[in-house]
Amino acid sequence: MLSKATIKDIQSLQHKKFRNERKVFAAEGPKLVEEFLSTGYFDCEQVYATAKWKGWQDEKLLSALKEKAQLIEEFELEKIASYTTPNQVVALFKIPEIPSIKAEKKSITILLDSIQDPGNLGTIIRTADWFGIKNIICSENTVDQYNTKVVQSTMASLGRVKVGYTDLEKWVEENHHVPLFATVLNGKPIGELSPINAGVIMIGNEANGLSQALIDKADECITIPRLGLAESLNAAVATSIFLYEITKD
Amino acid sequence: MLSKATIKDIQSLQHKKFRNERKVFAAEGPKLVEEFLSTGYFDCEQVYATAKWKGWQDEKLLSALKEKAQLIEEFELEKIASYTTPNQVVALFKIPEIPSIKAEKKSITILLDSIQDPGNLGTIIRTADWFGIKNIICSENTVDQYNTKVVQSTMASLGRVKVGYTDLEKWVEENHHVPLFATVLNGKPIGELSPINAGVIMIGNEANGLSQALIDKADECITIPRLGLAESLNAAVATSIFLYEITKD
Repeated sequence: MLSKATIKDIQSLQHKKFRNERKVFAAEGPKLVEEFLSTGYFDCEQVYATAKWKGWQDEKLLSALKEKAQLIEEFELEKIASYTTPNQVVALFKIPEIPSIKAEKKSITILLDSIQDPGNLGTIIRTADWFGIKNIICSENTVDQYNTKVVQSTMASLGRVKVGYTDLEKWVEENHHVPLFATVLNGKPIGELSPINAGVIMIGNEANGLSQALIDKADECITIPRLGLAESLNAAVATSIFLYEITKD
Repeated sequence: MLSKATIKDIQSLQHKKFRNERKVFAAEGPKLVEEFLSTGYFDCEQVYATAKWKGWQDEKLLSALKEKAQLIEEFELEKIASYTTPNQVVALFKIPEIPSIKAEKKSITILLDSIQDPGNLGTIIRTADWFGIKNIICSENTVDQYNTKVVQSTMASLGRVKVGYTDLEKWVEENHHVPLFATVLNGKPIGELSPINAGVIMIGNEANGLSQALIDKADECITIPRLGLAESLNAAVATSIFLYEITKD
């Protein structure tokens, strides 16, 4: 039986302030939790699972978890899960030190300016992982990578892609040893660029795009050509198309 | 002052059953509502707006609306909006006859098999509009295009892209006069295809992909090459990359 204090503690992790205090985040559902447990990307603090969870049948996994797994009832899962239809298990993992990101000389770095939607950030992290990109630097007001919705939409990619937060104007000044690409609505068609082996792809806020200060620092402004009438593309979709185009041979 | 019955009626439109009975859907926020009103994509049934709405200052728009606009208070808006932070206005529009989609000989049609997430469908409609694609055919269990979250994430593209629902296996048999492309995880790299002027791009369910029956009917199985470790791409992201690649010169 979970105590009221435990339930409140887990619920509080839906807020960034409490996650930062506790240095813990929550992941839900057997697929994601088991992938985090098996890869060891994050240290597990505690697993709360109903009798339906298949993990109970996995002796190796249970031995590794030791005292860190607790059987709970369905109604308790509903209280601690953020989903309205929770799925078997909620696990708490330790938030590692937020990395300091540098623009590497032989790879692509993604820069995110004020991305607000958790689904967008999660999808960008997952797509970066698909295209082999390891580093994302975000403005301080970009949504937190350990936000529950971000965690769920990254799948396990959250453990493979480093995401840092900083003052972007300062960061760009310190990392301008590789080309900077600003993604805008009226730049050079992305297909006309030569293949890019290194550089920073700068992506702007969902409604307002990139800040002018960052655009001014760019070496090249690039665009996904529009053939129809939509006013803009979703931020995660635009990022994904840029990543696809610049990473292909 | 809104009556209890009116509030209940508007709230009920968050459920497909009631939308289909009433043949009406809801759109929220000034940007989307004003674009629907100005383009005339959908017949307006009623606008509910607080004093903050700038539409009240637009004489032409008000003349066109006639008696179809009602001033409401902030607390009423909160009751009828689906967003927890509602924005000035909720409007009801008539659902047009759901179109019958045919695969056209000189254009691309998107086929969606069991897409469940409203944000994914909305994003696919918006991206289709960006790339000039006019027709989407969906399995009957794909999420409804007039679902509130779909409407909000399409932006106004919902009025420019036709979305139909049908039995896909039957539809594919009747529309196989253009090439059928199945998007899968182990097909031909999409970049190796010749430019495609016509055809049907088949996209599968978020968790399970395309049904085998549809894959079996395909002329070509295509894939977005993976360079990293993510297990899969988000369905809307994958669709967008395919659309980008096949529509470019």
